[in-house]
Amino acid sequence: MAKPETWRLNAGSYPVSMPVQTRFADLDSLGHINNVALAEIFETARVHFHHLFGRHPSDQGVRWLVAAVDLKYAQEAHFPYDIIVRSGIGHIGTSSWTLFSAAFQQGECVATCDTVMVMKGPKGSQGIDPQIRAIMEQNIARATTTA
Amino acid sequence: MAKPETWRLNAGSYPVSMPVQTRFADLDSLGHINNVALAEIFETARVHFHHLFGRHPSDQGVRWLVAAVDLKYAQEAHFPYDIIVRSGIGHIGTSSWTLFSAAFQQGECVATCDTVMVMKGPKGSQGIDPQIRAIMEQNIARATTTA
Amino acid sequence: MAKPETWRLNAGSYPVSMPVQTRFADLDSLGHINNVALAEIFETARVHFHHLFGRHPSDQGVRWLVAAVDLKYAQEAHFPYDIIVRSGIGHIGTSSWTLFSAAFQQGECVATCDTVMVMKGPKGSQGIDPQIRAIMEQNIARATTTA
Amino acid sequence: MAKPETWRLNAGSYPVSMPVQTRFADLDSLGHINNVALAEIFETARVHFHHLFGRHPSDQGVRWLVAAVDLKYAQEAHFPYDIIVRSGIGHIGTSSWTLFSAAFQQGECVATCDTVMVMKGPKGSQGIDPQIRAIMEQNIARATTTA
Repeated sequence: MAKPETWRLNAGSYPVSMPVQTRFADLDSLGHINNVALAEIFETARVHFHHLFGRHPSDQGVRWLVAAVDLKYAQEAHFPYDIIVRSGIGHIGTSSWTLFSAAFQQGECVATCDTVMVMKGPKGSQGIDPQIRAIMEQNIARATTTA
Repeated sequence: MAKPETWRLNAGSYPVSMPVQTRFADLDSLGHINNVALAEIFETARVHFHHLFGRHPSDQGVRWLVAAVDLKYAQEAHFPYDIIVRSGIGHIGTSSWTLFSAAFQQGECVATCDTVMVMKGPKGSQGIDPQIRAIMEQNIARATTTA
Repeated sequence: MAKPETWRLNAGSYPVSMPVQTRFADLDSLGHINNVALAEIFETARVHFHHLFGRHPSDQGVRWLVAAVDLKYAQEAHFPYDIIVRSGIGHIGTSSWTLFSAAFQQGECVATCDTVMVMKGPKGSQGIDPQIRAIMEQNIARATTTA
Repeated sequence: MAKPETWRLNAGSYPVSMPVQTRFADLDSLGHINNVALAEIFETARVHFHHLFGRHPSDQGVRWLVAAVDLKYAQEAHFPYDIIVRSGIGHIGTSSWTLFSAAFQQGECVATCDTVMVMKGPKGSQGIDPQIRAIMEQNIARATTTA
């Protein structure tokens, strides 16, 4: 079982931050925030991050699809405290990219999430255009030298 | 972006099968089964698989916690067709194990899911006892020779 | 607090039946099926019932919208037992109708649900056409004489 | 189909306010906030309101259960705008009470929700104690004279 790399647990590694409220419905029968509920919280932060691209995915018949999600749970999370999700681009490919995120609650990293996205056009995979690529490059997740 | 290995897309690789209904609430604004909803479907199949162990996790203060979930989406899934989740043990450690699952809809593999579970007792990580270990060993996910 | 009328707790009062699986995610921190999760279960059974109309709501720009939902909880419901949702038409208006449903688990009525639907066309409320009205009239929920 | 009374659509009728974020997962295939998702949003605001009572429901074996939920949808709600839920006590009985709530988005009332709660002790229904009753009486939802 691969634990997250240390720099992934550091809030300073990610350029973009979004607070997400927890809900009573996020609790499961163990009394903590359910792991699937955390995936739902990461999803909302991902949609928020993608607003940076200034483009709606459905423009001109393009769809952005989730190809893979890799979640690692570091600590139990609790209701009703907010989750702060921090995110940045992890990898930029030809028609796909990876978003690196980490969720923090009361200062502790509770989980990390790597989401692979693919861009599909009317004829299948579609290259990431230069404008979006530039925005991705300005929002990279990376280990900070002081971390 | 790592795609699932070929044998993971083959229903015959997994010893245990469970049909899970889809719900209208699984749909998102793209009109397909949302990727987080699929994680919720895999969760229900995982709880079902763990019934094989014949033990409730809360017995004697033991908790089974989800440490990691790795989802790969192969095809879009649709409502209202059932999902067949097939599962088997992928790896057995000292106090943790991995469940390998794959979701099929109308005969096609739509996603795979690897879930790392850890067993915690009152004093932290707790070894998997021989009875449960034996059940795990009888329910391994593996490539079949004819696959 | 108005309790459901007695005939509403009787499975024989409803012409249409649909089993809905419960999910681990339906549980809340009280360890029972959450009341909102039951609303989600009723929703899936409602969509199933509406398939009887043989028409997709989006046909010809028509939308079927939920105007009101009235839920009464009679018993606690539990995982992993299935819920049987029984449904029938409660009231037919000009452009709206009410669906009466009841959820049963292990033979007991756990909840009732009245859903008011409205049909909207490009110019606002739209009358229910004769074909759908006839199907509604064949699927009325009513007290049976022997109940 | 009973529409909400006019005073119920007025934010000034309710003493307590709570903003609730919407999530991408709240969207359904119609592209708007799903009606069950709104029920989940009302639930979180209800739990928040009940914090006023200064007591955890599980104190001394007492459980607070949802007996009924009556939702009326006035307008479609949209992502990603916040929902402001305003709430107040609608009715106080011996062992039950009703919470009146309304959800607002961008200044418009999108839905109202009446929730009937019952207090159960080890021996069944349990009377509301004077301390909690006093807090309820200080937080009544009512039509304001200027509304």
